[in-house]
Amino acid sequence: MRNSRRSQVDPFIVMDVMEAARAAEEAGRNIIHMEVGQPGTAAPKGARQALTRQMAEDAMGYTVALGLPELRKRIARLYGDWYDIDLDWNRVIVTPGSSGAFLLAFTALFDTGDRIGIGEPGYPSYRQILTALDLVPVGLSASPQNRLQPVPADFSGLDLQGLMVASPANPSGTMLSKPAMEALVSACRDNDIAFISDEIYHGIEYEAKAVTALEVTDNCYVINSFSKYFSMTGWRVGWMVVPEDHVRVIERLAQNMFICPSHASQIAALAAMECGDELEANMAVYRENRRLMLEGLPKAGFTKIAPPDGAFYVYADVSDLTSDSRAFAAEILEKAGVAVTPGLDFDPLRGAGTLRFSYAQATAEIVEGLTRLELFMAQRWG
Amino acid sequence: MRNSRRSQVDPFIVMDVMEAARAAEEAGRNIIHMEVGQPGTAAPKGARQALTRQMAEDAMGYTVALGLPELRKRIARLYGDWYDIDLDWNRVIVTPGSSGAFLLAFTALFDTGDRIGIGEPGYPSYRQILTALDLVPVGLSASPQNRLQPVPADFSGLDLQGLMVASPANPSGTMLSKPAMEALVSACRDNDIAFISDEIYHGIEYEAKAVTALEVTDNCYVINSFSKYFSMTGWRVGWMVVPEDHVRVIERLAQNMFICPSHASQIAALAAMECGDELEANMAVYRENRRLMLEGLPKAGFTKIAPPDGAFYVYADVSDLTSDSRAFAAEILEKAGVAVTPGLDFDPLRGAGTLRFSYAQATAEIVEGLTRLELFMAQRWG
Repeated sequence: MRNSRRSQVDPFIVMDVMEAARAAEEAGRNIIHMEVGQPGTAAPKGARQALTRQMAEDAMGYTVALGLPELRKRIARLYGDWYDIDLDWNRVIVTPGSSGAFLLAFTALFDTGDRIGIGEPGYPSYRQILTALDLVPVGLSASPQNRLQPVPADFSGLDLQGLMVASPANPSGTMLSKPAMEALVSACRDNDIAFISDEIYHGIEYEAKAVTALEVTDNCYVINSFSKYFSMTGWRVGWMVVPEDHVRVIERLAQNMFICPSHASQIAALAAMECGDELEANMAVYRENRRLMLEGLPKAGFTKIAPPDGAFYVYADVSDLTSDSRAFAAEILEKAGVAVTPGLDFDPLRGAGTLRFSYAQATAEIVEGLTRLELFMAQRWG
Repeated sequence: MRNSRRSQVDPFIVMDVMEAARAAEEAGRNIIHMEVGQPGTAAPKGARQALTRQMAEDAMGYTVALGLPELRKRIARLYGDWYDIDLDWNRVIVTPGSSGAFLLAFTALFDTGDRIGIGEPGYPSYRQILTALDLVPVGLSASPQNRLQPVPADFSGLDLQGLMVASPANPSGTMLSKPAMEALVSACRDNDIAFISDEIYHGIEYEAKAVTALEVTDNCYVINSFSKYFSMTGWRVGWMVVPEDHVRVIERLAQNMFICPSHASQIAALAAMECGDELEANMAVYRENRRLMLEGLPKAGFTKIAPPDGAFYVYADVSDLTSDSRAFAAEILEKAGVAVTPGLDFDPLRGAGTLRFSYAQATAEIVEGLTRLELFMAQRWG
């Protein structure tokens, strides 16, 4: 039976690491998971309780395509609380995870053959989803001087129809400052490039607050999610803020492509937004983990790291240690019992010389992982 | 800001009916809902209890992209129970509703410009999702003699790359017999047309069992869902069975496009499959409702109806009563207080002369709705 060309997307290289880690654990080994891209914590207790209550009272059929109005209104309020922005809730669209938001945004904005710039290193699924939609991802190799974030010079003359940025970014954890965001927005406006800002790690920031693109312009798509700060990855619920005159188009697409996001997940998400104490307790763990990483990784020998402004990742340049990050990650797993992610998924060009370390798990894991890494590196190069 | 051409999908006409019904209720009127396409019942009690238990024990992060192995195995067993088919569970893919399955299937199979035949009348989102993916929906006007289902002669010479069928169908409720399914599969095989069978109303059938395409061939995509028989519309969880050599391609697409279906919904779905008593009690309601509809609709004057083999719809030809089903539905809502769906969403060509009546709600509603319809029709034409 036929397969399409557009379906020939690349495999995730991290899947090999995860499979090897699973096999090692099955064989009785203890593995520290610094490869995972999600919190180790559950959805807040209040979110789970709210869902249990709702399940007893309501048939919980389809919601309207744009999501429960109460949830859309509550998300709009978050923009007041976090950024002091007065956001019209009608511009907020609840989506099946940020994944659903990417599909909606790309479909609403682009036609076959359109070229969309994506910063590299970056989240690998941007590239694959664009390919699956017969769009053309254009990798912008971001430089360390620019915190591994794209700048207008990186896409000047590339004839883009869209630009996708992420701040804080995965895998680097780096953020765009407000002037950096303004420069990108302005270059996009001048060149009729649709601007999409992935803000799914907002709320997980350490020394400065993350800047939303909405502080700079209303003429953009902002994508966010309940997965990270709200600790609800498995629930697949996110949101998007779009220009007012795009809401109707998105609504029609969402009706047809998804019908609606999971009703149960929307109920849980709404309640999660009132669980500040538990969420800030999670943040205290990330903060401590980050402190340990910034102390322990250089001590182990991982000294060239991107500025860890937000999210729960440290991205390390290991090009002076290896030219094959995949083999290096496999060696770290085998010898140190620590699973880490080779950079190749995030940066096809330079990822053979980088690793991503996640510190989203419990602090005891991080301590143990760092001890193992230090020992391994000392034996390997000491 | 730009919008793509592919995003210009048609609005649902039924949305106007639903909005008018909502406004009427807000104004204090009582409305009987024969326009809705979902069960009035909640997910089975056992499903909700299982989720409450799991939420207390597990962080419920991402699952693997293809879904929880236990759920995939349990779905494979259903094919043994329902059709006496021994299905390899590795071919079963859990999806974010059948909507997610359509997106995966169309992306895995077709490239920009490919032509996919869809029976008309049919589920309107097929057409819209295909358009959003820059594929070409080719409407096949199915004839009443063929139970409003496509036959090979309907697409001979149309240069299709794909054919999508649904049995039991929405809006008609008609089914494909095994010989009818065999004829379609064979014509597709001979012409290198990918065959996709939408089976989301399986389990809701009355006089004969629905035939799955897997009884005829392994060389097809079968799409199903927990929404209808398992009464879980709002949970957005479905599944797909694909040829063995397509699993890897789908896995990569699913990893990137969705990461995974909602973990909570998968837990609930797995438990729902053990709730046979409650599900059969729902079926007893549909059976009684159908009996009432087949008695009451002709009595009211809706005499030309499609064979109601399955699902919970009656599709009526009202072309001798109106040439504008939209205005007619609005009139029925206003004068009789019954919301029904004009056929235009399902059949752009002939839908101006058809209506869809749903009997998915409680029996008392159906009784009242039929009484109102009979009175309205008597006053209108009597």
